[in-house]
Amino acid sequence: MKDPKKPGGEPLKVAVAGLGTVGAGVLKLLAANRATIAARAGREIVVTAVSARNRDKDRGVSLDGVAWFDDPVAMAKEADADVIVELVGGSNGPAKASVEAAIDAGRAVVTANKALLAHHGSALAARAEAKATPLAFEAAVAGGIPVVKGLKDGLAANRIDRVVGILNGTCNYILTTMRETGRDFDDVLADAQALGYAEADPSFDIDGIDAAHKLAILTSLAFGTEIDFGNVHVEGIRHITALDISYAEELGYRIKLLGIARRTDTGIEQRVHPCMVPKASAIASVEGVYNAVIVEGDAVGQVAFRGRGAGEGPTASAVVADLIDIAAGRASAPPLGVPAALQAKAEPAQMAEHIGSYYVRLSVVDKPGVFAAIATALGAEDVSMESVLQHGRHPDGPVAVVLTIHETTEGAFMRALDRMRHVDGVLDQPRAIRIEAV
Amino acid sequence: MKDPKKPGGEPLKVAVAGLGTVGAGVLKLLAANRATIAARAGREIVVTAVSARNRDKDRGVSLDGVAWFDDPVAMAKEADADVIVELVGGSNGPAKASVEAAIDAGRAVVTANKALLAHHGSALAARAEAKATPLAFEAAVAGGIPVVKGLKDGLAANRIDRVVGILNGTCNYILTTMRETGRDFDDVLADAQALGYAEADPSFDIDGIDAAHKLAILTSLAFGTEIDFGNVHVEGIRHITALDISYAEELGYRIKLLGIARRTDTGIEQRVHPCMVPKASAIASVEGVYNAVIVEGDAVGQVAFRGRGAGEGPTASAVVADLIDIAAGRASAPPLGVPAALQAKAEPAQMAEHIGSYYVRLSVVDKPGVFAAIATALGAEDVSMESVLQHGRHPDGPVAVVLTIHETTEGAFMRALDRMRHVDGVLDQPRAIRIEAV
Repeated sequence: MKDPKKPGGEPLKVAVAGLGTVGAGVLKLLAANRATIAARAGREIVVTAVSARNRDKDRGVSLDGVAWFDDPVAMAKEADADVIVELVGGSNGPAKASVEAAIDAGRAVVTANKALLAHHGSALAARAEAKATPLAFEAAVAGGIPVVKGLKDGLAANRIDRVVGILNGTCNYILTTMRETGRDFDDVLADAQALGYAEADPSFDIDGIDAAHKLAILTSLAFGTEIDFGNVHVEGIRHITALDISYAEELGYRIKLLGIARRTDTGIEQRVHPCMVPKASAIASVEGVYNAVIVEGDAVGQVAFRGRGAGEGPTASAVVADLIDIAAGRASAPPLGVPAALQAKAEPAQMAEHIGSYYVRLSVVDKPGVFAAIATALGAEDVSMESVLQHGRHPDGPVAVVLTIHETTEGAFMRALDRMRHVDGVLDQPRAIRIEAV
Repeated sequence: MKDPKKPGGEPLKVAVAGLGTVGAGVLKLLAANRATIAARAGREIVVTAVSARNRDKDRGVSLDGVAWFDDPVAMAKEADADVIVELVGGSNGPAKASVEAAIDAGRAVVTANKALLAHHGSALAARAEAKATPLAFEAAVAGGIPVVKGLKDGLAANRIDRVVGILNGTCNYILTTMRETGRDFDDVLADAQALGYAEADPSFDIDGIDAAHKLAILTSLAFGTEIDFGNVHVEGIRHITALDISYAEELGYRIKLLGIARRTDTGIEQRVHPCMVPKASAIASVEGVYNAVIVEGDAVGQVAFRGRGAGEGPTASAVVADLIDIAAGRASAPPLGVPAALQAKAEPAQMAEHIGSYYVRLSVVDKPGVFAAIATALGAEDVSMESVLQHGRHPDGPVAVVLTIHETTEGAFMRALDRMRHVDGVLDQPRAIRIEAV
């Protein structure tokens, strides 16, 4: 690889697969900041080939002198390029095939594809290591926030104990808007779709899958373990109501969809679910489409990163940062920080053994004895209340009761929840949200 | 340099100059996380030599088998080491001599010394480039927060427009405590000294010099310019009163000592001074000994980093991260991101041309006509008020009047301030604090 201290050497030749918003954004950014990028990379970075579905679409970027490929896999094999940038998307199909073809051809790969890495990241990393070729993916987690490099390089001296992230901007936008407007989930989701902040089929985002992909990658980087997407506990935000958000405020919390990876005595916990976090915490103030990642290391303490997690500019910023690393010859370390041969299999912790606090909202008949029965149900599982909230009275009618539960195991809490549901006078399914100390 | 993909190769040999809190912390961290560090570095990192003043002091670390040097410069020349870690401190003397000796011997250097870099960083970077040897300094700015790597690597694709930081934990602790307790500066400083958060001679911290050192380094990394400490405008926090803090709260602001580097039409602005920042801003919530750096790039938008800016663990975390980079062969880029030959001289902007808003607190005699005279003084310089605050009356006695001033140039504002001071009925020197939009 070129000596970065000698600018003006051979340009780094880049082929880009996928010319959607991000792909076009990468081309625009390379053109807009060409001199700055060359100075920092030690040489020019030039796009020599692209691949996309529709050749005729105007993307606002010049493709003069750039080779066109209809097939990204053919491009990965045949293009005159040192690096293949994979922005096709999807955990299999042409994305996977083109990344594999590029690695096998000894070419460096830059990808923003979290689904691909969540499912096949460890195998691809081992493959890239075997070929001694870089595989970089800063853009796959938290968009423009340089948290992949943060974990791999900046905080590499630490034993990491926990990573907590707001990893999906769509969910954070919806939850923020619900809180600010008091409106309900479906209503805000429809607006987010109209504004382009949520997809027509939003399930990938709002059911937590996208955040889980990113968390699985962060977990591997933090703990030096194989990527283990299958053991991420995933819950989305569909069941969060305006009522829960308003009770959260009253109790001093905000509701966020968090991805959390944690070392526990029984293994590595990976979970994505709505959480109540203290209003005064730094993560509570991360609003709208912003993402944030908090890393806790034994030496450094808590370090937080915040920025835009998606969109053309932030994602292109991360992709081009990886290209600069490759051009400068500093992307040679193992893709996941620790060599594949040294990566431990993640020993997954069981959710039933998770220890935490909980918020519970019950709809109960406002009559004597119901509350005593609820308390008995909790007591039977050795679960204890921290606080109780009930506004107003509605004799013999339904009324909302909100409990917060002291630290206990998830298993005991779930059994207590089941007992409460069967208490005479408890209407509907109780709603529970985990409380996370951040 | 060793191939990082083959762990078990030659260890990286390290000599540490300076065994104070941070130096001992580096040795402890290398021992505590040895396996993790070796896995990420691709090889073992071993301390082969140390240098400090007192050989007999117990530092809680084993020095068995480690060569001792009384003179760090001799160690930099003679030790059996690939890397010299300079933790001696000071902008000249043995710190500078040992770094220069190490570079001249073709050894890599890691330093936490912001004073040295602020004064001699560009010359040392050019010297290291000429020898093709790494010079790394993550620990010199914002302690454990990986913001040097963030600017050099993670955000390298961006044209950076502004960097804003809380860069001195001592000042932030004092300002936070003043706000929380309502106590005055001298009182809180004395407590901070007793707690070890401030030095016996605190001027380096509280007069803004330490923050200015760090800002000068950040400016160079952000804008690709030579380090230009001499053109940092520096004001400390000695003149901040409990009264100003309480008025700030009332106006919706918090007072922070910020370091700000900004591209302007007339050049690069570098300033360290107390600022009022909106209470709802992310930087306002960075309290106590925490540091934070906000970077604004054209592609990425705003990215924020937050963490501990000093202390044994955070600083050792940053030093060892640099050692891992060197061991893994990814520290070869120019020390300041852009090669010395391509670095522009920073064209300093003049403070008189700074455009901003201002807070002013006046002590005036509560009698008719005074306020009209103040308004006239402002008008004479084309400076206009945004708000006026006066609590209570004290006919013919002194009363505090607080103004906020619309955006204007610093030059016009300073002239207006001078006019106000000479208004009949204005007692004492008016107090002004800049308002920064973050």
